[in-house]
Amino acid sequence: MRSEILSVGTELLLGHITDTNASWLARQLTPLGIDLFYVSQVGDNLERLSATVRRARERSDLVVMSGGLGPTEDDLTREAIAAVLDETPHVQPQLEAELRAFFAGRGIVMPERNVKQAWTLPSVTILPNPIGTAPGWWAERDGKVIVAMPGVPYEMKRMWQNEVAPRLRERADGILFTRILRVAGLGESSVEERLDAVLHSSNPTVATYAKQDAVDVRVTAKAAAPEVAQALVADIEERIRATLGQHIFGIDDETPQSVALRMLIERGLTLATMESCTGGLLSSLITDVPGSSNAFRGGLVSYATELKEAWGVPAEVIAANGVISVETARAMATAVRQQTGADVGLSVTGVAGPDEQEGKPVGTVHIAVASPQGIRDTSQRFRGPRGEIKLRAAYTALNLLRLHLLRAGSD
Amino acid sequence: MRSEILSVGTELLLGHITDTNASWLARQLTPLGIDLFYVSQVGDNLERLSATVRRARERSDLVVMSGGLGPTEDDLTREAIAAVLDETPHVQPQLEAELRAFFAGRGIVMPERNVKQAWTLPSVTILPNPIGTAPGWWAERDGKVIVAMPGVPYEMKRMWQNEVAPRLRERADGILFTRILRVAGLGESSVEERLDAVLHSSNPTVATYAKQDAVDVRVTAKAAAPEVAQALVADIEERIRATLGQHIFGIDDETPQSVALRMLIERGLTLATMESCTGGLLSSLITDVPGSSNAFRGGLVSYATELKEAWGVPAEVIAANGVISVETARAMATAVRQQTGADVGLSVTGVAGPDEQEGKPVGTVHIAVASPQGIRDTSQRFRGPRGEIKLRAAYTALNLLRLHLLRAGSD
Repeated sequence: MRSEILSVGTELLLGHITDTNASWLARQLTPLGIDLFYVSQVGDNLERLSATVRRARERSDLVVMSGGLGPTEDDLTREAIAAVLDETPHVQPQLEAELRAFFAGRGIVMPERNVKQAWTLPSVTILPNPIGTAPGWWAERDGKVIVAMPGVPYEMKRMWQNEVAPRLRERADGILFTRILRVAGLGESSVEERLDAVLHSSNPTVATYAKQDAVDVRVTAKAAAPEVAQALVADIEERIRATLGQHIFGIDDETPQSVALRMLIERGLTLATMESCTGGLLSSLITDVPGSSNAFRGGLVSYATELKEAWGVPAEVIAANGVISVETARAMATAVRQQTGADVGLSVTGVAGPDEQEGKPVGTVHIAVASPQGIRDTSQRFRGPRGEIKLRAAYTALNLLRLHLLRAGSD
Repeated sequence: MRSEILSVGTELLLGHITDTNASWLARQLTPLGIDLFYVSQVGDNLERLSATVRRARERSDLVVMSGGLGPTEDDLTREAIAAVLDETPHVQPQLEAELRAFFAGRGIVMPERNVKQAWTLPSVTILPNPIGTAPGWWAERDGKVIVAMPGVPYEMKRMWQNEVAPRLRERADGILFTRILRVAGLGESSVEERLDAVLHSSNPTVATYAKQDAVDVRVTAKAAAPEVAQALVADIEERIRATLGQHIFGIDDETPQSVALRMLIERGLTLATMESCTGGLLSSLITDVPGSSNAFRGGLVSYATELKEAWGVPAEVIAANGVISVETARAMATAVRQQTGADVGLSVTGVAGPDEQEGKPVGTVHIAVASPQGIRDTSQRFRGPRGEIKLRAAYTALNLLRLHLLRAGSD
């Protein structure tokens, strides 16, 4: 199946929004066994949009669109699809009733122009959008499919996962099974080097991707039956695990923070953080996980040196080693346990830049974790701009926490 | 001048790289008075790439390409342009010499396949790339231009700024001047409604864009001379400021956090935060600004209720009103001033979801700011997933801080 992605919206052409929908969708297509040949962005202009949809439908079997489903005059995706299919839109009464109920639930009278969000065509199956006002379209005729989804990323993703992907999976010629092994503490090239023996396999295919929070090893097998595909993946997964060991922290949708929290909860432990250069990013990542309050008690952001002392870091430690030191990191991890009563303390101190501090270069970071099982630390030097250093430091801290919990569990 | 952007590389179609070159280039075109009608990404396949370049050149006057200029068999941009123009590539001796010198300077013998990076065509002017091995092409014939630049973002940006933009500026029929007015505390539709009288103006043009941290109002004027364009913008800016007043918090690259920090520093005030549902995101945003340590002392992330009490929120306030209450938010803002010695305390408490808390629905957020000038608060109900609620709450807190500082300054 040949596909292409088409993102709609003049704001994309003005460069004020980067089209992250397209790259997200691109990543969804390969595991479904669908080839992607073109990605385009086009503005809110009916003539150009219709011409683009028409050409896409000529050269591809599946056209995946996002954006242009809003209620305004500038939202022209429905009009363009109607023009390409040469079908006339009509209001679907049930959809109109749901739309009016959505507004009524918010105590607002629906603006009349919104009624076009209840349009449908003879070739269209409506894709429900319970979290927004724009339903999607699955427009299928003559063996070709156009899918139109809202441009709001979380509405689009939900619709893809609940409505579009299941329909596409049914049509796949063979089952694809994918497992992502998530790796911490190694760079992408280092992962590739260690996996050289399996990287050239053709079924399953094995590929690595550097993400912000990990290096992903993606294993995908294709077979006539799901059990066969899963068995093919399991075999290679075992070999990869034997090579990468504890560097693999999780699979699929797991994140460094979700894994660390799960381990804490399984062990009945609570956590608190004390951050300097990450400025709250570490605790913010931890609290991105729903249910994090089951293990995370709280955090201290000790940006000013006096606050580190006020919150329990001995003045002598700072005087002797400086704020940017592994000794201070260790004292912070210990201090935050006392300040919060948490079982485990996790700390970060370092130089986020742009200027050096205490004569220590930008990117210098010291991290420590303290628990009744002892203290563990790591010192690193990260490259990149301020935001990048903060992120790398926070993810390295989460990995240190995981390794500490692993070792403490086996003592 | 009608233009389109074409990014080349199979990695873009696999979704593992988001095409930030395209959005960066898109932002460069408008100020040059060049209309952008299409953006596409295409893989490393000569047939599809040539077809895409051919169609782009048919419908646009300027085709801006990035990527596909490397030395490997997969780098096919030169081959595609040669096919479209029906011209035969030949090695340019000077370029070849420079290329060999570049490798020699690194102590490496140039691989022979790299010689194609010294190719040129009769219609091509070479664009130098002193920081990489891939020179660019300016291919001009029959009044149409194809620009090909490397895909590496910093090489591409340098080439654009030093080589491409100056050539395009010479052809521009007028100067463009743009000012972005950044708006907080109003939704995009509300901003559009208030600006209805200016939104239909044609020179300057006025348009709104919803960003994560603000609604942007972009005013762009075109004129023969820069002073004239600036005067046209200034005139409309005055009218917009009269309408939106204090909702405008900054211009161009300013952010809610950079503006709040600048105001604190100007007033000689220090800041501390106490966060519950935002979990450290507020202090992380603040510390994203270089130099934030000049005003930001630190923060408390009081996720567990006991920590709120340990850090100075009276137990009676929580018992009487619950953790999710404006009274608790006010007590938190006061408490963090005492805990940290900061002049200004800023607090957030609320329900980030996915489950309701104390019977209060997901998205309920209470925010307060306390200073010697008094306490100010706001209560809101945000929609969206957990991460979205955290972001909206943090930016609303920064806006409350700004408004408090503005009012305190005028007392």
